Amino acid sequence: MLIVQKYGGTSVGSLERIANVAKRVAKTKDAGNQVVVVVSAMSGETNKLISYAEYFSKTPNRRELDVLLSSGERVTASLLAIALNEMGYKAQSMTGRQAGIYTDSAHTVARINSINTEALQKALKEDKIVVVAGFQGITKEGDVSTLGRGGSDLSAVAIAGALKADLCEIYTDVDGVYTTDPRIVKEAKKIDVISYDEMLEFASLGAKVLQSRSVELAKKLGIDIVTRSSFNDNPGTLITKEENIMEKPLVSGIALDKNQARITLRGVKDKPGIAASIFSSLAKENINVDMIIQNVGHDGTTNLGFTVPENELERAKKIMEALHAAEYLEYDKNVAKVSVIGVGMKSHSGVASKAFETMAKENINIEMISTSEIKISMIIEESKSEQAVRALHSAYELDK
Amino acid sequence: MLIVQKYGGTSVGSLERIANVAKRVAKTKDAGNQVVVVVSAMSGETNKLISYAEYFSKTPNRRELDVLLSSGERVTASLLAIALNEMGYKAQSMTGRQAGIYTDSAHTVARINSINTEALQKALKEDKIVVVAGFQGITKEGDVSTLGRGGSDLSAVAIAGALKADLCEIYTDVDGVYTTDPRIVKEAKKIDVISYDEMLEFASLGAKVLQSRSVELAKKLGIDIVTRSSFNDNPGTLITKEENIMEKPLVSGIALDKNQARITLRGVKDKPGIAASIFSSLAKENINVDMIIQNVGHDGTTNLGFTVPENELERAKKIMEALHAAEYLEYDKNVAKVSVIGVGMKSHSGVASKAFETMAKENINIEMISTSEIKISMIIEESKSEQAVRALHSAYELDK
Repeated sequence: MLIVQKYGGTSVGSLERIANVAKRVAKTKDAGNQVVVVVSAMSGETNKLISYAEYFSKTPNRRELDVLLSSGERVTASLLAIALNEMGYKAQSMTGRQAGIYTDSAHTVARINSINTEALQKALKEDKIVVVAGFQGITKEGDVSTLGRGGSDLSAVAIAGALKADLCEIYTDVDGVYTTDPRIVKEAKKIDVISYDEMLEFASLGAKVLQSRSVELAKKLGIDIVTRSSFNDNPGTLITKEENIMEKPLVSGIALDKNQARITLRGVKDKPGIAASIFSSLAKENINVDMIIQNVGHDGTTNLGFTVPENELERAKKIMEALHAAEYLEYDKNVAKVSVIGVGMKSHSGVASKAFETMAKENINIEMISTSEIKISMIIEESKSEQAVRALHSAYELDK
Repeated sequence: MLIVQKYGGTSVGSLERIANVAKRVAKTKDAGNQVVVVVSAMSGETNKLISYAEYFSKTPNRRELDVLLSSGERVTASLLAIALNEMGYKAQSMTGRQAGIYTDSAHTVARINSINTEALQKALKEDKIVVVAGFQGITKEGDVSTLGRGGSDLSAVAIAGALKADLCEIYTDVDGVYTTDPRIVKEAKKIDVISYDEMLEFASLGAKVLQSRSVELAKKLGIDIVTRSSFNDNPGTLITKEENIMEKPLVSGIALDKNQARITLRGVKDKPGIAASIFSSLAKENINVDMIIQNVGHDGTTNLGFTVPENELERAKKIMEALHAAEYLEYDKNVAKVSVIGVGMKSHSGVASKAFETMAKENINIEMISTSEIKISMIIEESKSEQAVRALHSAYELDK
């Protein structure tokens, strides 16, 4: 098999842990596989470098920031290659440039345009273990670029796709994807297999195992991902095509996102294009609006409610106040989004009504609802959100 | 003027100091100059990275070591470019690769083969300040290489030569080259101008301001170097062609090298090629033999004495013992080399005799002597070496 393994910051967070990663890579190689390893910077390193840059500038030159930030992954990649060489393996590090990862010129948030796998293929043919510095590529101008937060996952998935790898393993410090946050529900179970679309819902709802961009790319390229822990030998969670999942559970898990704030515009002026002007002014400032509801109040006036990430509320407030689009504005930070996720919903009815019944039984008021084919999301009071997660987890028998 | 400035590890040893360097670079630019800056890694950084590598291997893969070690200079180069951009200057960092520095493939001790100045020239034409990551280049295989200790000085001199710069300023934490070590002789004076050849003698005799390779390269390329402190505005020492020095002093300075050990072979076997076999066996193990004397003892047997760096004595001992070339061997770590350096010696007699007279007056026994056109070196007892330096400094009126 050709396996791409990606090790995150905590997995390479110390010299001891890098030595541990080297052993794991060696074991995979010994089992007769071809191995490409993608590494992050040692945990804390990227934040340290950012703080250095911010000493000089609140808005550091982004081209230069990329030269700075890309150095951390080079350190881990070369150290891992040194460790593997010492163990008697032929190992070679590659920078993003050497691995042929070409991106656009959007420094610090670059997108991968293409991968020239020539050097990678050549090294694999020479029976080498290739250790690629993650998170980085090169622009057509020949400058170093970085892919934004979680960029090393993206490097790994893109390389796996370009090499037509059999598997992409993403190593972190958790065992995989859980039916819900084990800190909230101690009966939470690790999920063995999950579809890309369900994983996308988990990722976008704040489950931190894997970022949405990487899952989207894996889906597009049809790459199987296994997310697992580098600290034990547990098998992890396989993220794959829906067709590959034999027994589709009705509900796969419950996600909770506390980073939500609600804005309500009461008495919205009744003129054409008002909603468009509200949301385009937020979009212009890069504020992500999530759920939206509009209704006509008892008195015939229109109310408009929507949610934004809590840390963007202050900016959203200013924009709304400048817009004078409503009679008055209400803000609520104390809301959370609870979501029931499951690909089985597509073919089963009654999933949504069970969620609403559960909330009713718990005496929790649902403020907003949004559904998709594989997800039901509800905005509720934040203080009751963990209670809601526990009740839903049990109602859908995820602890069984 | 086109000025190349190089800032060493202590000059960029903290964020505050990098900010200070940015101000100095800006001032040079404001004065109407074109500026290329070459930076070292923050002090301590390279040693830290080496210790990381040594955690995994006593002899780390050298290609990988270069990927690792080259990361420190990238950090400083990008941070300085960020600082300059924030101050309103157009500044751009370049890695060794981007600056077009091509080396041979001797990883960790690479030599510069050529510099393609296209990118540098283009950036200068765009009125940019270019900040080059020192100490590194790229091999014809496309791998990162590093130039060995003091490599950033070499980068600066080579770039100055390739760009036909008017001046190459090497910034450290000392004011320039002194007539002798000011810690030994408090009357030591900073030298204003010194020739390449004299500087080479100082460098090879352990004065740490500038390494021999950089001075040799500057001499070859005819580049004027000024070595000065980044912590004040003192003018520093100009290192230039002998022809450019109007008033050549008889003696420029006194150098002391305590890192010397003497090996004496008594009763060397009288057969042809014995000396050759002694020195070739040392050369094979990369032991630098410095001074050599051979004489015939009172009893007609031959004695052979030579010096090696003190830290190589143990290895040299083993080689000598295995060779069985002499009746018995003597070792002495307690020796030092004191040297009188001056380009004026060439045309003046009596310089050497004054050195010997001074030693006699001080009652110091001279164990070995070696002379060149511009230097007299003497091996003496280490415990008396500072006394010797003080006496010579005064005898040649260097304190005047």
